[in-house]
Amino acid sequence: MTTTTGIRTDLYVEVQQYYARQMRLLDSRDLAAYADTFTEDAVFAHSADREPARTRAGILQDLVEFHRRFETDPMRRRHHFTMLDVVFCDGDEIHTVFYALVVITRPGARSEIRASCVVTDVLVRENGELRNKSRIVEIDT
Amino acid sequence: MTTTTGIRTDLYVEVQQYYARQMRLLDSRDLAAYADTFTEDAVFAHSADREPARTRAGILQDLVEFHRRFETDPMRRRHHFTMLDVVFCDGDEIHTVFYALVVITRPGARSEIRASCVVTDVLVRENGELRNKSRIVEIDT
Amino acid sequence: MTTTTGIRTDLYVEVQQYYARQMRLLDSRDLAAYADTFTEDAVFAHSADREPARTRAGILQDLVEFHRRFETDPMRRRHHFTMLDVVFCDGDEIHTVFYALVVITRPGARSEIRASCVVTDVLVRENGELRNKSRIVEIDT
Repeated sequence: MTTTTGIRTDLYVEVQQYYARQMRLLDSRDLAAYADTFTEDAVFAHSADREPARTRAGILQDLVEFHRRFETDPMRRRHHFTMLDVVFCDGDEIHTVFYALVVITRPGARSEIRASCVVTDVLVRENGELRNKSRIVEIDT
Repeated sequence: MTTTTGIRTDLYVEVQQYYARQMRLLDSRDLAAYADTFTEDAVFAHSADREPARTRAGILQDLVEFHRRFETDPMRRRHHFTMLDVVFCDGDEIHTVFYALVVITRPGARSEIRASCVVTDVLVRENGELRNKSRIVEIDT
Repeated sequence: MTTTTGIRTDLYVEVQQYYARQMRLLDSRDLAAYADTFTEDAVFAHSADREPARTRAGILQDLVEFHRRFETDPMRRRHHFTMLDVVFCDGDEIHTVFYALVVITRPGARSEIRASCVVTDVLVRENGELRNKSRIVEIDT
């Protein structure tokens, strides 16, 4: 087991807080604001059956396309991130791994787990703010 | 995205710990102890079909009434709070937003998600202890 | 409600990070590495229908036996720990309580909650690293 020494407490909490805000943007379907949490040159791979989206503009376009499937499916979606591991920092890059549960609720139906995932992020800081340089989502199948 | 600057690490962790203890009280049906985590003048809105409960005494009475429905339904209930955002502090008030999953287990049945919620809290400190001045629960439907 | 005063922020975050790494080991079926997160004289009680496993070697043997049932059941398992409470520190021992959701995914099927649990740990530090001296898992039934 890798030593936990050297992972800064402040950073760990800042990442938790960043994820809470970032994912509320996506869950409220504010796709432009969610895309804005990625760097200009970011990579976002979120589905095994889609090519990774590249660049912030490309990520936004991909999000808009992907979310068309929800237009006729009025589900409420919540992303729960747990088990955060700030694995290491390499220069300006913060490498994290965590679990994600995607819980959906459709009108008149019980909430259910739509996906169980492992997410690998690389974060960087721009003007003091954290942003995703990459996000790789592996969905359990 | 609002800057994360200025959210104190110590406070974020203290709120996490507070929620863990507070919700274990409710999940163990210690309604009086749970009500005691609210201030004397608190407001607690937890169901769309019920008026918000007001004052600590009123919250306890509401809890007792609400939990009568569980007397004939021996379910075990667990509140999982995730994605904590300590949004801002305004004077003595600490404003938070987070997700809640309510997971229930009935004898002989699989555990299931009973509710997916967004919770908005205002916390204050009394004699050094955090307490809820208000809690607004919005349940996904 | 017990006072939160005196729970050190650094320790709380270190425990969160420790659990993230520890449980990724179990979820990836690296049973030897998971057993190695326990002390030589540790106790691990994880199922009501099994005697607690004792000593690190005994825990590993128990894990191997227990996981045989999964050999013909290709499920992906994820342990989500939430609501961490670092209850108190007693000398070198760190006492924690938290909730655990075990989410499984079988090929071609929806993810589901396999178990909802309350976990009580005693952690100690060996060569600077956290380890479990005991873990008692109570599964909601």
